[in-house]
Amino acid sequence: MDDRIKKQLEFALEIDKEKNIFRQTHLSGHGRAENDAEHAWHMAIMAYLLKEYSNEDIDIAKVMIMCLIHDIVEIDAGDTYCYDEEAKLTQKAREDAAKERIYSLLPEDQKAELTAIFDEFEEWSTPEAKFAHAMDNLQPLTLNNSNGGSDWKAHGVGAKSVYGRQSGTRPGSEYLYGVTDEILKNQIAQGNLPDDL
Amino acid sequence: MDDRIKKQLEFALEIDKEKNIFRQTHLSGHGRAENDAEHAWHMAIMAYLLKEYSNEDIDIAKVMIMCLIHDIVEIDAGDTYCYDEEAKLTQKAREDAAKERIYSLLPEDQKAELTAIFDEFEEWSTPEAKFAHAMDNLQPLTLNNSNGGSDWKAHGVGAKSVYGRQSGTRPGSEYLYGVTDEILKNQIAQGNLPDDL
Repeated sequence: MDDRIKKQLEFALEIDKEKNIFRQTHLSGHGRAENDAEHAWHMAIMAYLLKEYSNEDIDIAKVMIMCLIHDIVEIDAGDTYCYDEEAKLTQKAREDAAKERIYSLLPEDQKAELTAIFDEFEEWSTPEAKFAHAMDNLQPLTLNNSNGGSDWKAHGVGAKSVYGRQSGTRPGSEYLYGVTDEILKNQIAQGNLPDDL
Repeated sequence: MDDRIKKQLEFALEIDKEKNIFRQTHLSGHGRAENDAEHAWHMAIMAYLLKEYSNEDIDIAKVMIMCLIHDIVEIDAGDTYCYDEEAKLTQKAREDAAKERIYSLLPEDQKAELTAIFDEFEEWSTPEAKFAHAMDNLQPLTLNNSNGGSDWKAHGVGAKSVYGRQSGTRPGSEYLYGVTDEILKNQIAQGNLPDDL
């Protein structure tokens, strides 16, 4: 087996660990916590299905691989809950170290390619990155909406924080932000998302 | 919210259930059983990383969405272990019914598109389908190889059956079949895969 395929398979094996990184979101039907690999799978399919709503033309293959790999750094850095302001202070340093270690398992050209795609996501620098972020918001919202907002309740999160986060959908898709706003208003009306927090 | 996005979000919520369909493969580090969503996520990333080894030119976006959706029917039909000859007799009927129910949640055009991609996979009819099947073989092999063949041992599976299954990698990638052969020979040499079964 030559060095190139050995490195590729070593990386493929390493990322298996992402299936053990659990998030704050729970599966539909008030299920268990979701893991990063499941979240990424779900986001990539939603990106494919909802691509017609992107504000700008997008390369869907790039959006899908971006969705699929965007949380690989959490194998080392752990999941940072989007409403945990303290953990977010150290998030970039933790994720940079993880990025260097994990992507260095790949051949140089693929390390460069995948870290560039990850950086693009982090920097919101392209239409693909913006649409991937819209999916990173809409996917957990879909689950949490189905569970009556139980993930928000568990963390005492209110409408102000949620709207702050979900407004990041707008650069990727104004249409899906409108859908999000409708979902959130409905959750507020049902008493699942306090509008005074 | 208009009818089209309602249907798309209903489908997006329905497929969440794939995270509860468990396979016979176990995660690396002798971990728990893997579920279908994790398997599909892993396959799609491997397809992107290993696309250079496809026998024929492939549309990688199509391969990725094919990998991501290929097990959605198992939400209703359950996982059929690839060495369970009895269960395989009823597999197609179970999966056809599931395909009709689940993809009918989508708008008509997307139902047609995604069922066509699923059928293409099932029929091995295109370079994309053949390469996706190579990933469907190589992904669990990567995990099982890392675990000393424990999934084969649990089911009393021998080299003849495994070579029968893994030979399905050849139409997609002769190169990756060579890699597979090397992995299997090594497992046989280590006594993890009986070569007299």
